[in-house]
Amino acid sequence: MTGSPVDRLADALAKLPGIGRKTALRLAFSLVDDGRLSEELAAVLSETARNVHECPLCRNLTLDPVCEVCGNGSRSRSICVVHTSADMRSIEDTGLFRGTYFVLHGSLAPLDGVGPAELGIPALLERVAGVQAQEVILALDSTTEGEATCAYIARALESLGVPVTRLARGLPPGALVEYADALTLSQALKGRSRV
Amino acid sequence: MTGSPVDRLADALAKLPGIGRKTALRLAFSLVDDGRLSEELAAVLSETARNVHECPLCRNLTLDPVCEVCGNGSRSRSICVVHTSADMRSIEDTGLFRGTYFVLHGSLAPLDGVGPAELGIPALLERVAGVQAQEVILALDSTTEGEATCAYIARALESLGVPVTRLARGLPPGALVEYADALTLSQALKGRSRV
Repeated sequence: MTGSPVDRLADALAKLPGIGRKTALRLAFSLVDDGRLSEELAAVLSETARNVHECPLCRNLTLDPVCEVCGNGSRSRSICVVHTSADMRSIEDTGLFRGTYFVLHGSLAPLDGVGPAELGIPALLERVAGVQAQEVILALDSTTEGEATCAYIARALESLGVPVTRLARGLPPGALVEYADALTLSQALKGRSRV
Repeated sequence: MTGSPVDRLADALAKLPGIGRKTALRLAFSLVDDGRLSEELAAVLSETARNVHECPLCRNLTLDPVCEVCGNGSRSRSICVVHTSADMRSIEDTGLFRGTYFVLHGSLAPLDGVGPAELGIPALLERVAGVQAQEVILALDSTTEGEATCAYIARALESLGVPVTRLARGLPPGALVEYADALTLSQALKGRSRV
């Protein structure tokens, strides 16, 4: 245990994504100043750390026995596969999907020891078969890792005969053709649809 | 004719898109310094201004009687409709499209007096019918104006019975679901395709 409390706090905060050294120091100073906020935050953090667990159905992080979405009986039998709980929140925020989710907690990365088992793919297959899913939507990142994961899961689901779809790739809303890069334009051209 | 030559040059340069006052001044100083470059640029500019005209077939800007793409006999009978010559260049750079183009030189904007005639839509219809186009691809911006123009042209082409497609909208390559805004995700979900 060395260093000033501010530095130790800042070191911990700087490990959060998107928090640089400067922001971490600013936050650390205000936390050191405000003992009550520090205690409250500490309590919430340790309670969360103790009680948070994966939903047994969809692997979403939750404090309840089953997560809020899976516990909602009015959801449809479509399953949306996402990388993280944050992605699940983004899809929920569109208000367009009324089914349930399955959270992989990552992408396939065989070189880092992340294979199908680590992503819970056997559990996904079981769940798709068990609930007789109407559709599986692969809402994965449009990155190399996301594409590889998407291709793997689509192949794994083939034998179950369930329709498997993926998010459209193309021009994001507001994009100008002139400033779109060649890869985006290529995907938008390849994925063009009848008007 | 007032002001120093540098200021007058900078005023003219600052009218170019993306050139702010500071960049304009920097460019103006180097042009004033380099008389030969200034003369060369002046000659090219005035020759371009005198000789550039719209290709009679596709309205692309050209110095030749017919533009390079329209003059190339090996192009297919698909027609790609774009807002500007710059957009046409972007699509050419993807290397995925081997047909010809039609340049609207803008979007529908009835309040600004830009109607179908200003965009050359009657000429487009004539050309689509004349060459018996296989497909019309609407490669328009993913903006409100682009969408409106797209919808109008699609309706105008309906009676010709030619397949009309539009660029896919969705996640651009490299995009993460977590950071995509709700509108992008909504379009990606709505446009999802079978894997």
